Amino acid sequence: MYFTYEQPKIDLSDEKERKRIVDEAYANGVEAAKSGKVADYIPELAKANPDDFGICIKTRAGETIAIGETQKRFSIQSISKVINLAASLKYLGFRETFSHVMLEPSGDAFNSILKLDTVSDLPFNPMINAGAIQVMSMLTNVLSFDELLSFAKAFCMDDGIYLNEEVYNSESLTGDRNRAIVYLLKSKGVLQGEPEKTLDMYFKMCSLNVNAESLANLGLILTNRGQNPLTGKHLIHPGYIRTIRSLMFTCGMYDESGEYGVLVGIPSKSGVGGGIVASAAEMGVGTFGPALNKKGNSIGGIAALEHLSHLMRLNMFS
Amino acid sequence: MYFTYEQPKIDLSDEKERKRIVDEAYANGVEAAKSGKVADYIPELAKANPDDFGICIKTRAGETIAIGETQKRFSIQSISKVINLAASLKYLGFRETFSHVMLEPSGDAFNSILKLDTVSDLPFNPMINAGAIQVMSMLTNVLSFDELLSFAKAFCMDDGIYLNEEVYNSESLTGDRNRAIVYLLKSKGVLQGEPEKTLDMYFKMCSLNVNAESLANLGLILTNRGQNPLTGKHLIHPGYIRTIRSLMFTCGMYDESGEYGVLVGIPSKSGVGGGIVASAAEMGVGTFGPALNKKGNSIGGIAALEHLSHLMRLNMFS
Amino acid sequence: MYFTYEQPKIDLSDEKERKRIVDEAYANGVEAAKSGKVADYIPELAKANPDDFGICIKTRAGETIAIGETQKRFSIQSISKVINLAASLKYLGFRETFSHVMLEPSGDAFNSILKLDTVSDLPFNPMINAGAIQVMSMLTNVLSFDELLSFAKAFCMDDGIYLNEEVYNSESLTGDRNRAIVYLLKSKGVLQGEPEKTLDMYFKMCSLNVNAESLANLGLILTNRGQNPLTGKHLIHPGYIRTIRSLMFTCGMYDESGEYGVLVGIPSKSGVGGGIVASAAEMGVGTFGPALNKKGNSIGGIAALEHLSHLMRLNMFS
Amino acid sequence: MYFTYEQPKIDLSDEKERKRIVDEAYANGVEAAKSGKVADYIPELAKANPDDFGICIKTRAGETIAIGETQKRFSIQSISKVINLAASLKYLGFRETFSHVMLEPSGDAFNSILKLDTVSDLPFNPMINAGAIQVMSMLTNVLSFDELLSFAKAFCMDDGIYLNEEVYNSESLTGDRNRAIVYLLKSKGVLQGEPEKTLDMYFKMCSLNVNAESLANLGLILTNRGQNPLTGKHLIHPGYIRTIRSLMFTCGMYDESGEYGVLVGIPSKSGVGGGIVASAAEMGVGTFGPALNKKGNSIGGIAALEHLSHLMRLNMFS
Repeated sequence: MYFTYEQPKIDLSDEKERKRIVDEAYANGVEAAKSGKVADYIPELAKANPDDFGICIKTRAGETIAIGETQKRFSIQSISKVINLAASLKYLGFRETFSHVMLEPSGDAFNSILKLDTVSDLPFNPMINAGAIQVMSMLTNVLSFDELLSFAKAFCMDDGIYLNEEVYNSESLTGDRNRAIVYLLKSKGVLQGEPEKTLDMYFKMCSLNVNAESLANLGLILTNRGQNPLTGKHLIHPGYIRTIRSLMFTCGMYDESGEYGVLVGIPSKSGVGGGIVASAAEMGVGTFGPALNKKGNSIGGIAALEHLSHLMRLNMFS
Repeated sequence: MYFTYEQPKIDLSDEKERKRIVDEAYANGVEAAKSGKVADYIPELAKANPDDFGICIKTRAGETIAIGETQKRFSIQSISKVINLAASLKYLGFRETFSHVMLEPSGDAFNSILKLDTVSDLPFNPMINAGAIQVMSMLTNVLSFDELLSFAKAFCMDDGIYLNEEVYNSESLTGDRNRAIVYLLKSKGVLQGEPEKTLDMYFKMCSLNVNAESLANLGLILTNRGQNPLTGKHLIHPGYIRTIRSLMFTCGMYDESGEYGVLVGIPSKSGVGGGIVASAAEMGVGTFGPALNKKGNSIGGIAALEHLSHLMRLNMFS
Repeated sequence: MYFTYEQPKIDLSDEKERKRIVDEAYANGVEAAKSGKVADYIPELAKANPDDFGICIKTRAGETIAIGETQKRFSIQSISKVINLAASLKYLGFRETFSHVMLEPSGDAFNSILKLDTVSDLPFNPMINAGAIQVMSMLTNVLSFDELLSFAKAFCMDDGIYLNEEVYNSESLTGDRNRAIVYLLKSKGVLQGEPEKTLDMYFKMCSLNVNAESLANLGLILTNRGQNPLTGKHLIHPGYIRTIRSLMFTCGMYDESGEYGVLVGIPSKSGVGGGIVASAAEMGVGTFGPALNKKGNSIGGIAALEHLSHLMRLNMFS
Repeated sequence: MYFTYEQPKIDLSDEKERKRIVDEAYANGVEAAKSGKVADYIPELAKANPDDFGICIKTRAGETIAIGETQKRFSIQSISKVINLAASLKYLGFRETFSHVMLEPSGDAFNSILKLDTVSDLPFNPMINAGAIQVMSMLTNVLSFDELLSFAKAFCMDDGIYLNEEVYNSESLTGDRNRAIVYLLKSKGVLQGEPEKTLDMYFKMCSLNVNAESLANLGLILTNRGQNPLTGKHLIHPGYIRTIRSLMFTCGMYDESGEYGVLVGIPSKSGVGGGIVASAAEMGVGTFGPALNKKGNSIGGIAALEHLSHLMRLNMFS
């Protein structure tokens, strides 16, 4: 962790310097990955190689820096929550979306039911499972999975994204806690869609295969206020971007969001497949490193992003 | 709430435009205050006038805009948590401070004990009562109240700050829940100071009388990376600023922090005395409006800050 | 409530006196029922007549006293938990049964998930939904529904017990919270059977139609150490009776068990269909009164049983 | 644990047989004690000898059987809760007492705060710390400690009971969790006395030194409906006995009450000093064995009482 007082004096306009910083971030990520563990709650995820690591940066200015495993496909998992939320804002709007899910960090683990059954009938936010399932229950009424997949491809500027059937089957077979959540939401009368259809689309979206570059693109489009910088096309109205990025900041890293917010300070979202997407001021970043820390976040990804944030002065709160 | 897609086209370099926006923010605050209620959990606070409202802005460029009750003194309450945290970072450092308190938003009300007795023995963050009491237990070992008061005066650029004895006595007499918290922390072996001394200094810091201008100054110094812009003096090392501002963002508005983060998007801290301090990109803002919403935040202050954020484009995540 | 110091001086050997006491108990039940409300969480149950009331007593000596609606069929609901537990003890034994469910009162409402997801992975006891579902998951491996129904008929000495299809369909359609519970148990790896089959048999057992006399018989057999007093046949080994009766005492009346234990002091089990079965020292008692109190217990049934307990000196702890 | 189906065929009218059963119970207690641990949360209690064991039985018929350490003094701890409750019923009555504390088993550990801050503002029952502190807050208004001590001496038929100053000082110094509880109760506006005075008397009553014989006497008087069998004097009206014994049954053994109720089936109360008092149908039993199990109950005491209950047929629910 960086607690140094001194801002590093680096000429960020120098391309070599930028490349050097990303090289260091990559090296940090590779090193940190050695002390993490791949997810094992779904059999398919347990097959990942804990030594894999990759980082990809895409700037609004058009620069790309990619090091390591940035093309290898892996499971998007919880990062799909960002895409689902974006779709909900686009197709249903802010008011409708947040009539059925709250916007508060919960301080609980990603799959907690505690608050749902004590403090509130509505899930705390769209970045935890209960909230994302709730968002999906709304989406099932307006979009098919194919349409949502197309939206994901566009948002990640990646036509190669596909449904990993093995992961999907694995999710469906072992997703009992998510099934408990969907029926709990239904029993409270808040679920907006049919439970099994909701779960099915939720599991499918968790089972998309992406790569670090797709995530960098996703981060870049969020940074670019919803606009694809190559085509100029708006994928979502710019007015919704603050909602997505703010919720990524307060809730995007499970119950490590607060600490990550201090140490990295960039709106980000992680998935137990090992990915992290970050939307910094002038760039999107995607990292891939399936070795996780105890909170379920990519341990290499955090190490790399902390270095990057420090040396490139990306922390929004500095 | 502002959900408009269009960014307002306002020439912020025009002084009259800026003044007009603050006038509107003030008017919004006055209007919103009509539907709030003053705090009643401490008798002294119940005496506040719910119609009071004031807003003060101080920019790094040296501009001041003050409208309404910006000189009237009121009780700082929870905003002192920001000063306590700053003092802890300055005098004890990051590692020591966060060895004894976490950095996570809790999603619970300001005075919750739930998480403290189930999820973790350490308080979730320094912005809720349990965490602020924990921080104070550390401070009692290195600072006297007079020294902490001096630090508060310097951080608010306001020599007129004083201890309101009536509020302090009221706090001491009725602060049973905080007393429960301090002994619970002690029973868990995590409290770092003597319980009654800790409580005493905690109550005193909650009982400081400030005004909207003091808070604008506090916000300005946080914006200015810990440096008093008039004297050039650093009150706290710039490396600590991201920690304070990030925690204000994720945890500063009680269990409304997530929603406020989306709608206003500025690191802020509120107090049940009616104050809000906000540290935006180029300015500090202080508001005073003792009429509170159900979450315990100044209802007028939020209305004014939302307007200000929207028209002056202060939302960090847009 | 009876707080009188004096034990009533009544000659219980006098048949007329006994009849008079039951008449009074019935009258108390009818009166109390006026302030209760029928269950509405399942549409079929909401059709019950809140004014219905009946009480049936069967003694080991062979006496029967029946007043009011003692032949009218109603939904057994949670009272089936007693039968399920008995079947589990009989067919699986004590050790196997209590390897998968605990024996502790939870202090929570019948359908709480809180403890299950915080304190323990095993349900607290077989008298709350989570525990009864867990017991049923074991039973699905050794008994068919028809076999369990036969066991219920024998235990209630009532061949007329049948599955109410309307209630069963109603349960299946609206039992989302129970479905959440079964999948939560499965996600924790503790469920012993297939979830949907478990739920199906659980719902079916909740949907049996019984009457007050069946319940009196059930109580009598528990009182008679598991033996049918007419046929002499042991339905369950006497060594298991203390387990069933003790758990009825500590957990049988939802989160009113403690108070009921003091005021009535007889091992009992209630259901939201309006039934209560009580197993006193020398008699079984069945009451039927669908008007419930806020805890979900038959308000008339409790009033009648309190009177009966006081005047017939049935409180085990006096 | 006894799961045998067969009731033992023992002639309990034979004095030698009775003596033999108690000898075996004692031997079981001594053996079981080897796997327990003395309490360490208060320094004074940690000094106890884990090998100590004693059992004393007093019957209504006047028989006494005492084996092992039945005269050695030890700390009464939570067993004082029974005396406090009895005093509250005697001096304040049922309605007043239970206006301020509930009668429900909580399923939580003895010192839990969870339910107090979520489900209910009133403590769940007088047998957990929060409830016993609440009862004491009422008693402080009507009795001095000396008067309560006299009541304890009479109830235990033991003039030798005295305040152990070392334990009392130890409690006062380390009782932070209880202090947290008393202030939490005060903050909720439910505490009935002055907090520090309440705590002081509560700690003093926990610090009384008793022995196994005192506890057997206490159990005997509860069995004897509140009457001292030697003097014929009523220490408390018989109408209150069911309340005390029923709450002992449902809540007396902390979060092991349900299991103990099934396996032993006698209203009992334990203390972390190693004592257990049991009030069976025709006898009082006191055991002393400071080696505790994980729930904080005397492991030897439970083993001895289970044997005694089985062979002497004391289980109320068999």
